[in-house]
Amino acid sequence: MGSRTKFCITLFLVSVLVLCAGLALAKTDPELKQCKHQCKVQRQYDEEQMEQCAKGCEKYYKEKKGREQKEEEEEEWGSGRGRGDEFSTHEPAEKRLSQCMKQCERQEGGQQKQLCRFRCQEKDKKERREHSYRRDEEEEEEGDEEQEQEDENPYVFEDEHFTTRVKTEQGKVVVLPKFTKRSKLLRGLEKYRLAFLVARPQAFVVPNHMDADSIFFVSWGRGTITKIRENKRESMNVKQGDIIRIRAGTPFYIVNTDENEKLYLVKLLRPVNLPGHYEVFHGPGGENPESFYRAFSWEVLEAALKTPKDKLEKLFEKQDEGAIVKASKEQIRAMSRRGEGPKIWPFTGKSTGSFNLFQKDPSQCNNYGQLFETEFKDYPPLQELDIMVSYVNITKGGMSGPFYNSRATKIAIVVSGEGRLEIACPHLSSSKNSGQEKSGPSYKKLSSRIRTDSVFVVPAGHPFVTVASGNQNLEILCFEVNAEGNIRYTLAGKKNIIEVMEKEAKELAFKTKGEEVDKVFGKQDEEFFFQGPKWRQHQQGRADE
Amino acid sequence: MGSRTKFCITLFLVSVLVLCAGLALAKTDPELKQCKHQCKVQRQYDEEQMEQCAKGCEKYYKEKKGREQKEEEEEEWGSGRGRGDEFSTHEPAEKRLSQCMKQCERQEGGQQKQLCRFRCQEKDKKERREHSYRRDEEEEEEGDEEQEQEDENPYVFEDEHFTTRVKTEQGKVVVLPKFTKRSKLLRGLEKYRLAFLVARPQAFVVPNHMDADSIFFVSWGRGTITKIRENKRESMNVKQGDIIRIRAGTPFYIVNTDENEKLYLVKLLRPVNLPGHYEVFHGPGGENPESFYRAFSWEVLEAALKTPKDKLEKLFEKQDEGAIVKASKEQIRAMSRRGEGPKIWPFTGKSTGSFNLFQKDPSQCNNYGQLFETEFKDYPPLQELDIMVSYVNITKGGMSGPFYNSRATKIAIVVSGEGRLEIACPHLSSSKNSGQEKSGPSYKKLSSRIRTDSVFVVPAGHPFVTVASGNQNLEILCFEVNAEGNIRYTLAGKKNIIEVMEKEAKELAFKTKGEEVDKVFGKQDEEFFFQGPKWRQHQQGRADE
Amino acid sequence: MGSRTKFCITLFLVSVLVLCAGLALAKTDPELKQCKHQCKVQRQYDEEQMEQCAKGCEKYYKEKKGREQKEEEEEEWGSGRGRGDEFSTHEPAEKRLSQCMKQCERQEGGQQKQLCRFRCQEKDKKERREHSYRRDEEEEEEGDEEQEQEDENPYVFEDEHFTTRVKTEQGKVVVLPKFTKRSKLLRGLEKYRLAFLVARPQAFVVPNHMDADSIFFVSWGRGTITKIRENKRESMNVKQGDIIRIRAGTPFYIVNTDENEKLYLVKLLRPVNLPGHYEVFHGPGGENPESFYRAFSWEVLEAALKTPKDKLEKLFEKQDEGAIVKASKEQIRAMSRRGEGPKIWPFTGKSTGSFNLFQKDPSQCNNYGQLFETEFKDYPPLQELDIMVSYVNITKGGMSGPFYNSRATKIAIVVSGEGRLEIACPHLSSSKNSGQEKSGPSYKKLSSRIRTDSVFVVPAGHPFVTVASGNQNLEILCFEVNAEGNIRYTLAGKKNIIEVMEKEAKELAFKTKGEEVDKVFGKQDEEFFFQGPKWRQHQQGRADE
Repeated sequence: MGSRTKFCITLFLVSVLVLCAGLALAKTDPELKQCKHQCKVQRQYDEEQMEQCAKGCEKYYKEKKGREQKEEEEEEWGSGRGRGDEFSTHEPAEKRLSQCMKQCERQEGGQQKQLCRFRCQEKDKKERREHSYRRDEEEEEEGDEEQEQEDENPYVFEDEHFTTRVKTEQGKVVVLPKFTKRSKLLRGLEKYRLAFLVARPQAFVVPNHMDADSIFFVSWGRGTITKIRENKRESMNVKQGDIIRIRAGTPFYIVNTDENEKLYLVKLLRPVNLPGHYEVFHGPGGENPESFYRAFSWEVLEAALKTPKDKLEKLFEKQDEGAIVKASKEQIRAMSRRGEGPKIWPFTGKSTGSFNLFQKDPSQCNNYGQLFETEFKDYPPLQELDIMVSYVNITKGGMSGPFYNSRATKIAIVVSGEGRLEIACPHLSSSKNSGQEKSGPSYKKLSSRIRTDSVFVVPAGHPFVTVASGNQNLEILCFEVNAEGNIRYTLAGKKNIIEVMEKEAKELAFKTKGEEVDKVFGKQDEEFFFQGPKWRQHQQGRADE
Repeated sequence: MGSRTKFCITLFLVSVLVLCAGLALAKTDPELKQCKHQCKVQRQYDEEQMEQCAKGCEKYYKEKKGREQKEEEEEEWGSGRGRGDEFSTHEPAEKRLSQCMKQCERQEGGQQKQLCRFRCQEKDKKERREHSYRRDEEEEEEGDEEQEQEDENPYVFEDEHFTTRVKTEQGKVVVLPKFTKRSKLLRGLEKYRLAFLVARPQAFVVPNHMDADSIFFVSWGRGTITKIRENKRESMNVKQGDIIRIRAGTPFYIVNTDENEKLYLVKLLRPVNLPGHYEVFHGPGGENPESFYRAFSWEVLEAALKTPKDKLEKLFEKQDEGAIVKASKEQIRAMSRRGEGPKIWPFTGKSTGSFNLFQKDPSQCNNYGQLFETEFKDYPPLQELDIMVSYVNITKGGMSGPFYNSRATKIAIVVSGEGRLEIACPHLSSSKNSGQEKSGPSYKKLSSRIRTDSVFVVPAGHPFVTVASGNQNLEILCFEVNAEGNIRYTLAGKKNIIEVMEKEAKELAFKTKGEEVDKVFGKQDEEFFFQGPKWRQHQQGRADE
Repeated sequence: MGSRTKFCITLFLVSVLVLCAGLALAKTDPELKQCKHQCKVQRQYDEEQMEQCAKGCEKYYKEKKGREQKEEEEEEWGSGRGRGDEFSTHEPAEKRLSQCMKQCERQEGGQQKQLCRFRCQEKDKKERREHSYRRDEEEEEEGDEEQEQEDENPYVFEDEHFTTRVKTEQGKVVVLPKFTKRSKLLRGLEKYRLAFLVARPQAFVVPNHMDADSIFFVSWGRGTITKIRENKRESMNVKQGDIIRIRAGTPFYIVNTDENEKLYLVKLLRPVNLPGHYEVFHGPGGENPESFYRAFSWEVLEAALKTPKDKLEKLFEKQDEGAIVKASKEQIRAMSRRGEGPKIWPFTGKSTGSFNLFQKDPSQCNNYGQLFETEFKDYPPLQELDIMVSYVNITKGGMSGPFYNSRATKIAIVVSGEGRLEIACPHLSSSKNSGQEKSGPSYKKLSSRIRTDSVFVVPAGHPFVTVASGNQNLEILCFEVNAEGNIRYTLAGKKNIIEVMEKEAKELAFKTKGEEVDKVFGKQDEEFFFQGPKWRQHQQGRADE
């Protein structure tokens, strides 16, 4: 077993554990059992690996139990992921990471150590998130040279670009305005919209339907989503990494079944009535959210429901707490139980209700990062919408790319961490403006800092690079629209397109000897994920700790 | 045999008779024979039912013979359906209906009586149409409360919104301007256009082709449509209820084969060159309609047709009567005969030329209305265009809905009758304007009077209700665009979406006990069609007659 | 064997020879061998015909050898097709044609004579091209009556409408601006762009990718195109008549492998990011063409390529000769050899890399012209893009049409020759402007002179005619977009749509007797291609020579 294979197994194990963690806050044994079961059914594992995996499960659970007790002491609302100041009230705990890391040093074997570190990081991740704004200032120098261009970068969206659609005590929905409002360069995305939903622990998102097809991605937490299809009800328990399609017009409701963690959903929407414009329709409701039943005349409602006006009035005026309300523990337990149905965690079974992105092996995996990606066959609803979903986890100090997508446009959401994005863009190059086109295109470097909840777009054909900061892994959720037949062309490292070209082409294109070209393009022997510009420096730093 | 089944059989019989009626004005026996044959081949009928059906045929024909003699005395042009004042000259005959109805009372058995009444109504229908404008005034009070909002309703189109494209002594074509010209909210329909064609008895619509795909629906009368496909001619006799697809560029011509009735066609067009803009091309013609041959230089035409200019000039200057001219009885007979071809009435056989909507059993059917709808497999050309066609017949005083379509947008044309439409629309709600979006959407009630030839649009996801007036059945033809995968979600009566939700969801959404919700949403036990707000009052009125 | 069949075989033979010619400049025997082989495998040939064919091959090669020697004396750059003044420097050789033609008179048998003449013309074609501008003046009188309308014709594009994107000593790329920039009537083409590439002998078009799907057509010359698909390289030798699809994002490069002839490519592009807007991305490169690698920060590049900045700088600054550079003979030989791969001329074998349009029998063929056209099954990539490619060769003095396409819009490029185009257009008719629409549409004659490199568009449904001048065959390359299910409806000659109509329809439409109509529309007994308006005059002229 080569060291790379070993390493990837370790990573897989970590991701299993992360999955477990997402579901783990209930105090019963089944998660541990399932974690172990998950180890067993990995066809590619030999016995030794299975055992290793199982041990990892046990260890992890011990640790988790300890962590949970600590967390219970923290106040309920503050835990979990936060969008800036709004939902976050608890304090950073940087010391905890270094302590956790120190404990890892006691582990035997490099693999065990690395596994341990990953666990620490995963735990640290959500805590760090609260700091992202403070840390920005500390690292400002690093980003200085790009500062100027940042303002002109139409491909990156931050907090201030979002609009709040729903906000109650129990949660909120924020929406990115139409992409074309930002720049004409985003016309290719004019049919899509992006929204985030955050629900506090035990929150219930009341039933509604939208005039838009949508893909939900659970980026944090766990809950139960219930859809009504024709006249059948379909409930499913969902957790971090789940992809769920909700068809246009389908009534659905969501409950955050966790008593401690917030539930974070990222939604990609594709409106069916008006390009890039969608509406939400509440049937059940009252004054707030207003029920659309109230828009009919009373005589019509009386006839349709065979109920006199006074009774109708009473029913349709009670709800006044908005579209996200708080459920009782009993209500949550009842709804959560029904969601278990035919879908047994972590297998989606034959249900087409959802697909967990982390259940697949990563398609790219090395020391510097992992890439999880769906194929159409994984979850057919994605094919209907011509969308692919992927998740990139760039190790702190690492980088991904440069590469480009042949025909898909990427809509990326930073789930966690921070870093830098560089895009080579011919559209915005200055030579365009001066009208001197005859010598061919030139490219503008668009460079931007990105951090948790940043959104960025990379159009098809545009080469780009993402670099993780040295403090934290950079985790990015990507929706690729126009995905059918898309190919990723890498521009550095193994399998880069320059290497593939024939000697004469290299010579003629670079106007130099072929060997000179090969020296440069053949040197990097990793694929897709590389050591970032400050890797050594960061690693040094780590060794010093 | 339950009473509902019986009732639906009766309805089917009626629709057979109506079909017969559509073809019935020729004086030969074959119609009667075919009507009886039609009774025989209904697999779901037992012998008794078949006999009943056959008797119905005979009876109807007797009646028809009598009616025909009367009608022959009326002046030819005035009969039939009319768009307002233009083609209608004959007087209303309200008394006739009550006389007809009285005769029905002599029938034995409730079923026979109802059947008889339907016949009366069907006959009455076209006569009533002429009155619709006068009656509007009489019922104005009823609509008072909606009057104000009517003007702001961008989803309803009346006479004044149409433009006349062709008008000759023999008929006319009126076209609805681009939907987007009315409102940006209709951008989802920007690729479609709607047109009506009315041809007097024996009128001939001269050969032409359009740069648009189109679906024709015969809403009244009968005729022969001839298409030229590559270099083959395909003729088909069509009648009320027929759906015909004409592909872009296909030359076609139409003759109204009836000597007494006008022919009404509704056309949904989807231009291929420019979104929402189409042109008509006349090859055969002269000065009016101008032939496009005249747009070529004479030398080119001389060469192409190997004919000297003077002969060409003679040929291409004769026609001056416009695009709709009158045919002789011999010409009609000849063209009609050829349309019989492989398609034997009322079966479409293997010809894919057309499909009759009324040949299917209604998908919804009760005392308060019937719904006929196509599926893609009925007529594959509809799938290519992603369009569904349906026909709603709401009993006078009844109502349909509230419901919404999950992803299709409905373009509805009132074929006969009058009533009211209510749509719950979040786009136009006042809270949108005031910028207070955070508490979620609110809904504006769009309420409009509708009557014969009104057109209305209901976007996907929007709940709506249609109520028939107390005077007449309300018959509506619907084109549903973006139909693939569309689901109708009902909001009252059996199978309504609220009922399907789980108890906890109801409680949380309505902020009340589940039983309270069930009391309201479980009471109506009909499906889709209900007693309208003034049903009892209307029925009372009928009993008094 | 009827005279028509004989004639078409002759034409086929000619096209084989033309194909041979395209590849023929190498001095080895294989071409001759293959030409003869090609004769053998024609299933429809009897022995006599095969022999004839083989003899034709031999004869042609003798002639060619002689021609080649002459041509070698001409200066390298001037030969081949030219876009106006830029690349053409050598003198017309009109005398040569008449000499060539005179020699043909010595041939025995009409077939042999005609074949000989075609050869002369083919040779003459490229020489004549240089004259097209001078000749315009001579024939101005002929076009006088259309002069005025020409300016208002939004469907025709000339030199002045193109923009130069790339221009180096070795070649250039010119692009037609977005169709919608010219006229709103071209909105149906807003997703497409058209570009021409001209590369001097031995020129190399450096590697690049585009954010657009594209179809290349080799309209003159031969070369090698190399595509990189995922991480495989695929080279293919291409020649006149080849159709090649390049998917969006695919890196590719092109070399003109001919030492004497220029390489002409016509490109139809369909951008994937922005409708009608595409960019070119150069990876390998330096200062000019600029490499997109230079748009990344040095620290990122250093990390990605594991190479220090100074070495990178050296590599990425050398190229300064632009996007089209000159290759050495050795380089060309190497690249050309690799392109031979599995594809054996003239069969495309199982490679889906390209398809030669001239390898098919013409779908229309008579004395006055030939039509070559692809079907989707010939080259499946065309179906994905819903595009058909066709090539029309109208004999000098002949004409094609009138006809119209039922749903496809034609983008036509005049490859060689000159002539006239007439389109009947309802959109621009004056009656539209005056608002008198009620009598139906009327048509404006759009008439334009067309010549080498003219581009014209014919929207779906619009009848049109193309007439070749009396001096030269008119050869037109056509891209038909929206091609699925398209039908060509002919308006004169055999199978014209008027003939197919029934007697009564003709009578009613033309308001005259059916026989009168038949007299005119039944007279022309050719199909699709006819004698043009001045055919006899031209033929007379030829006889006089």
